[in-house]
Amino acid sequence: MIFSSKLIEDAVQEFSRLPGIGKKTALRMVLQLMRMEKEQVDGFTEAISRMRHELKFCKECHNVADTEVCIICANRSRNRTQVCLVETIRDVIAIESTQQYNGLYHVLGGILSPLDGIGPEHLNIATLHKRAAEKGIEEVIMALSPTIEGDTTVYYIARQLQDLPVTITTIARGIAFGGELEYADEMTLARSIAKRLPIESYVNVQGKN
Amino acid sequence: MIFSSKLIEDAVQEFSRLPGIGKKTALRMVLQLMRMEKEQVDGFTEAISRMRHELKFCKECHNVADTEVCIICANRSRNRTQVCLVETIRDVIAIESTQQYNGLYHVLGGILSPLDGIGPEHLNIATLHKRAAEKGIEEVIMALSPTIEGDTTVYYIARQLQDLPVTITTIARGIAFGGELEYADEMTLARSIAKRLPIESYVNVQGKN
Repeated sequence: MIFSSKLIEDAVQEFSRLPGIGKKTALRMVLQLMRMEKEQVDGFTEAISRMRHELKFCKECHNVADTEVCIICANRSRNRTQVCLVETIRDVIAIESTQQYNGLYHVLGGILSPLDGIGPEHLNIATLHKRAAEKGIEEVIMALSPTIEGDTTVYYIARQLQDLPVTITTIARGIAFGGELEYADEMTLARSIAKRLPIESYVNVQGKN
Repeated sequence: MIFSSKLIEDAVQEFSRLPGIGKKTALRMVLQLMRMEKEQVDGFTEAISRMRHELKFCKECHNVADTEVCIICANRSRNRTQVCLVETIRDVIAIESTQQYNGLYHVLGGILSPLDGIGPEHLNIATLHKRAAEKGIEEVIMALSPTIEGDTTVYYIARQLQDLPVTITTIARGIAFGGELEYADEMTLARSIAKRLPIESYVNVQGKN
């Protein structure tokens, strides 16, 4: 594409760095921003700039946070004996949006994947153990992707928590094998949290396959 | 969607104002920006901010410009006797990207559409007449949408320019290169047969590429 304005070209260039945004889509967005009021565009750029510069990660659960501790961990009315283990903050948003879960979270930051060079030391497992040991946590709900890597991670972490008086459950299999948690519909996701299973039955079910 | 961070929520909100961007896509973009280096994100927001605040419209042709006059109008090596009339700056980008046109442009800013309340006074017709009268323009190439409104606009403007010694042409309408004949609409097909070209001119056009 040949632009007759460097200002437009630069903006299109920046937009097309974003995932799934080609040059034509980027141009459409830039032209939309061009037509918007200056104040609105300032609102847009300031919201993004603030997000990048001020966003923190909760020192308890590694979720995104506006302050030292995220609003979920800071919420005294939530069930503080339950922790839902998820891979990413997208999963926190997905589960929160079901409005069916009232416990806390722990963001693992990924999943064990030897092929990608992701070992236990790259994930927030040590802090999970510490929380489970010190913060009166009674149940850890494993809400990881239902994939081979997810299952491996579940087993690994379950073993790591063996020494603690913590019940380990997994979200019910309502989500198709190979599916991505964030794309599940809210009903399925809510139900799979409500119908979570103790880890033994998970192992048994797995054993039957 | 329920976010546990106001910073994320605001950024997603701002992104989802853009055309064709839903909440999930907006979130994906925001999380991508979150993972980018601060300097990169600053580059992104600054490019957009600069684009919105510094972008001008060429006082000659109404195209986007970084200065008073756009780089196309300022380019002395272009054919200054030819003006291609287009609806929007996107059309300028599309035609420039072909690298086959060496004249100037005039951005009309839309198309006559009585139903949408767009009359001649809303379009850059007066400045086109002035340019044609004063700047030695010999040919106006109408490159408007091949629709009823487009044709109406072409006729209207052609009449407005009647008093001037200007040749008026329209871009060729026909079957798109690589297009399947059977999928062309009847109007286009009928017209491309009626306006058929001698084979020599076809060969010549092909030869230029």
